[in-house]
This record gives sequence, C-alpha cells and structure tokens, in this order.
Amino acid sequence: MASRKPTIADVAALAGVSVAAVSKVVNGKAGISAPTRDRVLTAASKLRWTPSAAAVALRSAKTRAIGMVARRSPDLLSADPHFTLLISGIEGELSPLGYGLLLHIVGEEPSAEEVAYRRLADERRVDGVVLTESRVGDTRFELLRTLDVRTVLIGTPWRADPVPSVQATGPARGVRAAVEHLVAHGHRRIAYVSGPEDRVHTLHRRRVFEDALAAHDLAPSHSVVSDFTAAGAVDAIGKLLAEHRRPTAVLFANDSMAVAGMSAARRLGVDVPGELSVVGHDDLPLGELVYPQLTTVRQDLIGLGRAAARVLLASLGEVEDASVDVRPPELVVRESTGPAPDRT
Amino acid sequence: MASRKPTIADVAALAGVSVAAVSKVVNGKAGISAPTRDRVLTAASKLRWTPSAAAVALRSAKTRAIGMVARRSPDLLSADPHFTLLISGIEGELSPLGYGLLLHIVGEEPSAEEVAYRRLADERRVDGVVLTESRVGDTRFELLRTLDVRTVLIGTPWRADPVPSVQATGPARGVRAAVEHLVAHGHRRIAYVSGPEDRVHTLHRRRVFEDALAAHDLAPSHSVVSDFTAAGAVDAIGKLLAEHRRPTAVLFANDSMAVAGMSAARRLGVDVPGELSVVGHDDLPLGELVYPQLTTVRQDLIGLGRAAARVLLASLGEVEDASVDVRPPELVVRESTGPAPDRT
Repeated sequence: MASRKPTIADVAALAGVSVAAVSKVVNGKAGISAPTRDRVLTAASKLRWTPSAAAVALRSAKTRAIGMVARRSPDLLSADPHFTLLISGIEGELSPLGYGLLLHIVGEEPSAEEVAYRRLADERRVDGVVLTESRVGDTRFELLRTLDVRTVLIGTPWRADPVPSVQATGPARGVRAAVEHLVAHGHRRIAYVSGPEDRVHTLHRRRVFEDALAAHDLAPSHSVVSDFTAAGAVDAIGKLLAEHRRPTAVLFANDSMAVAGMSAARRLGVDVPGELSVVGHDDLPLGELVYPQLTTVRQDLIGLGRAAARVLLASLGEVEDASVDVRPPELVVRESTGPAPDRT
Repeated sequence: MASRKPTIADVAALAGVSVAAVSKVVNGKAGISAPTRDRVLTAASKLRWTPSAAAVALRSAKTRAIGMVARRSPDLLSADPHFTLLISGIEGELSPLGYGLLLHIVGEEPSAEEVAYRRLADERRVDGVVLTESRVGDTRFELLRTLDVRTVLIGTPWRADPVPSVQATGPARGVRAAVEHLVAHGHRRIAYVSGPEDRVHTLHRRRVFEDALAAHDLAPSHSVVSDFTAAGAVDAIGKLLAEHRRPTAVLFANDSMAVAGMSAARRLGVDVPGELSVVGHDDLPLGELVYPQLTTVRQDLIGLGRAAARVLLASLGEVEDASVDVRPPELVVRESTGPAPDRT
C-alpha cells in the first residue's frame, strides 16, 4: 500500500461508503450526515489522502457559517433597524449550533451584490445564504441556483419563483387591521406612503390597503411612493398636508418614515393624533421611544429570522424540524392614532 | 519518492522555505506573505502531502473573515443602532478586499461570549476579531491572547492593557462642547444620565462632564446611572423631574435614552427645550427623525469601524497603511436645547 498513492476509492472502502459520498464530503455538498462525514475524514486522514491538493481541501466541507449580503447604504441600514432584528432572529438559531453569520454590506450597486455572492460560492465560505427584501424581477435566485448555493428568502418570492421562503401566516392581517382601526375612528380620507416599488412587499401591502378600504366603499385619498428614508417621508407629508382636501390619517410602509412624517407634521403645527393620525409598519423599538408613541403594524421579524435560519439548518442536516412559529402581523395601537377631526 | 509518504520537510524543500514556514501556513499563523503561502500550498499539492489529516487542513490558512462577538440582547441591539454603524464602517474596509464579517450575538451571559471566542479560535473561523464596548475589568484581551487571536478594540482600553485600539482624537471634546453650550445658555443645574458603570467610556465621559462643569465652578446637579434602555431613561427622567430643585438640562449617554427621556418629559407636560434642555450622545439617525430634533454629541462611528478593520488588515498584510482618519466628537446643536428657563 505504501508503494502507491492512496485514491478516493481507498478512502471510500475504508470508510465503508461510496466514492460519490467521499466526493460530496470533500466538496461540501449536501446529503451527507455528520457521522458519515467524520468517517470519511478519519479514513482520509489514516490514508493520508487529500482530494487533489491542500488548497482544494481548504475550501471544502462545511463552513458552519451562513451568509447574508445586504445591498444598502450604511445610512439606511442604521436608520432602519428592521434588518438588525432579522439578524438577531437568525443568530438565535445559529449560535446554539456553533454557526456564525457572515455579513457583507455592499451598497446599492447591483454588480457589487453579484460579486459578493460569487465570492461566497467560489470560496465556499458559507453553507447557505439568507435573502431579504424580495424584489420585483429579482435575479438573485437564478444567480444562486447557478452557483449551487442553498438559499432561503425571508418574504414573498417574486412570481412563483420556486425558492424556499418563510413568511408570516396571514401576512395581510396587519395592514387590514390598521385600516379597520382608522375607519372605525371615523377616518374617510386615508393616505398611503409606500416604500420603493421594486420591493415585492410594497405592491402586496398597497393592494391589501386598497382592498381593505374598498370593503368600506372607500379608496385611498392619496398614494405616495417614497424610499424608506426620513427625507422622503418629510417630503411626502409636506405634500399631503398642502392638499386642499388633505388626509386625516396616513399609513407609512415603515416606522422610520412614520416617525419622521409625524415629526414633520407637528413641526408644521399639525397635531398628532388630533388633526392627523399616523400608522407605521414593523414595530421597531423607535416607535415606543417617541412622543406620541407610534401606532404600528407589528411584524415578527425575530421569528422570521429564526424561521429562515432553521430552513437552512434543516437542509444541512443540523436540525430535524424546519418549522418555527412566525406570529402573524398585528396592529399595535398606541398614541399616534385617534378619532378623525370633526371639521373633515 | 513514491515508495514513502511525503513529509513536511519535502514540502519545505520543494517550496524553498523553512519547515517552520510550512507549519505556519497550514496552521494559519501570521507572518507569511501571500506568495509564500501559495508556494507552500502548491508544493503540498504536488507531493500530495497533507499535514496530518484533511480534517486539519480544512481548518487552516486564512479565512478572509473578521469576527465580532456581541454580548447584547436582541432588543438592545436593535434599540441602539450604534452597533450597526460600527459594522457599516468595518464592512466598508473589508468588502473591497473580499473579507466578510462573521457576527455572533450571544446574549448577556459572560460564559456564552467566551464559548463563542473559543470556537472562533479553535475552529480557525476568522483571521482576527474586533472588540467593542471596552469594559472595566475586561477579561476578553487576556482570553484572546491565550487563544492567539489578532484583536483590535474600538475605544479606550481598561487600564494600560496593551491591546491595539482605535479611538477618536480629542475624545473629550464632544461632551465638553455640550457643557459649554448649556452653560452659555444660562443653565446651572445640569444632570447626567450615564450608561452602565462597567463600561470604560461611562467613567471617562462622566469625568469629562464633571471637569467641564468644574471649570465654571459648577457641579452636576444630579448623576444617575442607567442601562442604555428606554425604560431606564423614562425612570431616570421621572425621578429628576420630581426633584424639588430639578435640573434645567440633562445629558444622556446615548441617543435612544435621550429621545425616550425627552418623550417622557413631554408626556409629563414639561416643554422641551422651554423648560428642559436635552442632549444625547452618538448622533444616530433617530435624533433627526424626532420632534424636537435632538441636540447630540456626534461620534464618528463609521470612522471608528473603518479604523479597527484597517488595523487588522494591516497586521494581516492586506493593506500597508493602518491609519484611517477618525473625526473627533463634536456637538450637533438642534432643537432639544435652548436657554435655561427664567424661573430657575
């Protein structure tokens, strides 16, 4: 035996597995249990076999890391802690199993995102990736399929894209409850300030908003497309309040915009909620810090992060059960909403 | 040659380097240039040599990842985007070089933190780590020295701990400017609400606050130790406003507490800044969203993150110059501060 170099067949024979299984282990592919992987590595060690080079071996096998690539400017990232809550949820599942989260923040340029994913795949730095902010015409799924990277999406996929995804049950429930709350308080002129239209959830939520109003024979008084920034919200509220028949209530697509919009209204001398009711979306800690405290649609962001992590961990054979309870969205009524003003 | 197994000496000879250098490469130690590392790996590949087992090889060599372990509850993490800004700065330096940030959030339990660091080290998952929130009696430096992990601290080390660290120039400048601003506006009863006393910066900043007041023959009207949470700030402001001779101005140790405290004051019917001036610390996006907008001490958190990353990248031989400009703290005057009320 010492007279010839060991082959993959020798390793397979000693480990009592197929050559394909050895190949899967050294290439870090799915479908191999931890005990089998250990047997293969032990056999490889005994025979002093290495697939072709240490350099290749270095890049193989499980990394025990999950990747996340964020295409956001640093400013937007910190202004919207939505992302931080998702990360907390993901970490909650990864940490006990000794997995880490490998984070890449790449700015808004689309090519930078692709470069980051290619690098994660080519250098086998992660065992899978979590995608967020499902986009209209999303090309990430196709890219990651080509790269043969395990993927899970937090949110609703664009079209019927067959990508594993996690979503809350009853995703429409929260926005619908917000509309019911406002209508019950006598509001008839209700405006919507959305996020960018290239996000799948922007279109979904606006549709839910319109349908909920339609059930009361109402239509949106105004519909403004914004960009999730404070400046965008200030601009939107300025325009809405300058209207001849201005809205008595405004729903915003996230809490940062809602708080910025509420502050801008008050700076213009408009009382919240006396003259204008404001509703946010997400229920970030921010909404409780401010005065008046923000009425908002609570999303179970930590639950969504957990669920996404578990889907990946299950496909890696680390956990048996991929399911995590994600609480449905619900309306949290605080101080920023009240009865519609009389003079409307 | 084919009749015996290759040894580390064969690899060293073929690569034209010392045995120690080969050992360093396969163990992922510092002090090896990229070309040398490539030569060693190529030689190992040609000879089909592997240090002892594929399993060992898998864990060796550069990971092109930097680690960060956060000992925080998920809630506190999202309530204080301070951390997110540091991460953005770190990523700004790592991304162009293809490095990722491996993030572990471990909750408040000290042992969980140690487990996370040991795992990062034992499994060679990162090339170095960034520490934040320098603590009084910090044991992390000693641990990481034992584990032989490259370390850089953002902030002031506890005692003269010889750990590489990055700090803003003139760290006292911001809090001092805040005190000057308040004193110039006629405030004489100025309170301080600090973070936990186990943080090094808590002690530093409170000292700066006291010294700046002393320069005007003043002492703090009140000094409250809080915990960086909104609930803590609400509690603190409630106590301060219930005092017989209550303060006319309050400095908080972070922006989240300042905003929560300001909101609590207004809910109690106290006008800000008419009856109470409020100053935050950090200049997070939050401070611009609220009404009145927050006067705060700006920290260059992105610059600090960048600087920390560059110290590690320089020690890894990835960049030549470790220096990054970190802007000194400065006071940003907005709407939450004004003249002291007459009736004081």
